[in-house]
Amino acid sequence: MDAGLKVLHTHGFNGCAVQDITNAAGVPKGSFYNHFESKEALGLAALELFWMNGTSRRDLLSDTTIEPVERLRRHFHMLTAALERSKFGRGCMIGNFSTEMSQNADFRQRLAKIYSDWTDTVERCIEDIAAAKKLNLQLPAKTLAAFLINAWEGAVLRSKVELNGSAFDDFERVVFASFFKA
Amino acid sequence: MDAGLKVLHTHGFNGCAVQDITNAAGVPKGSFYNHFESKEALGLAALELFWMNGTSRRDLLSDTTIEPVERLRRHFHMLTAALERSKFGRGCMIGNFSTEMSQNADFRQRLAKIYSDWTDTVERCIEDIAAAKKLNLQLPAKTLAAFLINAWEGAVLRSKVELNGSAFDDFERVVFASFFKA
Repeated sequence: MDAGLKVLHTHGFNGCAVQDITNAAGVPKGSFYNHFESKEALGLAALELFWMNGTSRRDLLSDTTIEPVERLRRHFHMLTAALERSKFGRGCMIGNFSTEMSQNADFRQRLAKIYSDWTDTVERCIEDIAAAKKLNLQLPAKTLAAFLINAWEGAVLRSKVELNGSAFDDFERVVFASFFKA
Repeated sequence: MDAGLKVLHTHGFNGCAVQDITNAAGVPKGSFYNHFESKEALGLAALELFWMNGTSRRDLLSDTTIEPVERLRRHFHMLTAALERSKFGRGCMIGNFSTEMSQNADFRQRLAKIYSDWTDTVERCIEDIAAAKKLNLQLPAKTLAAFLINAWEGAVLRSKVELNGSAFDDFERVVFASFFKA
């Protein structure tokens, strides 16, 4: 699973073969099918693992001991820091699979639910920001939550091309300078 | 070239084989290499064609007969309308290749230049908006231009998963309700 996640995240679903994954895991290729019905089945399990690994970063959004704008800022910072550790080359598996795997109904449905759950969590944090009278925009929290997640995923695309964090600096500057009160 | 652009755009670079492209073009597979040194060479040419096809949508940004906020709105509308015609399933080739091909230096460099040129054009339009005193944000035009392009590309990712235009509605609502004066 760990090798599968790493290889699929780094090379993309169609950018690697089952053999690359079994090589990375140091196991014979034939043993793959004792554990997974198909490469797609591993891909879905890897996406699940990637999403679950991010749990702590989402828990932060509902940590009411922290001021809500600060929670949101730290949430995106932690996501960005994870990309920085791989020098921005791998991107976010959610975004990568959105590009590559949306034609597969199983992936598409799982990704749609991930975006929806992620948006709900960000939305509740934005509701806390609004309740604290720190929201500058007269817009539904759900609209803003979806926009922020999409804008961050777009910054990930650009960071893969630029191999630096400029796109996240721009994201931070625009969002935290204008959407919320300090 | 047309068949290559269509197949690569729809299935992604790694999601199709040269055979899929020659089948779509109705030519024998062997003839491919009379015209292109490699699948990568076709991919770069297809990216170029995709980018050049978008020229009219970028020209709009510097059409000073149109009010500058309206130019920017129409620019993103026209880009979104192109995705809608394929029911949001294919996405934007620039974003698709950013995900899939950034590990290839030739693609990475070409994509970086495309983002940079696109950002310059949006930046000049935002400077016109600022000159017309219609910019609500105290931020450099370049920062805002890069942010808008990235946020739009992120909306594309989500629209591929949701197969509808909601992400673009959110983009439009946030950006045109708050960044600029009507």
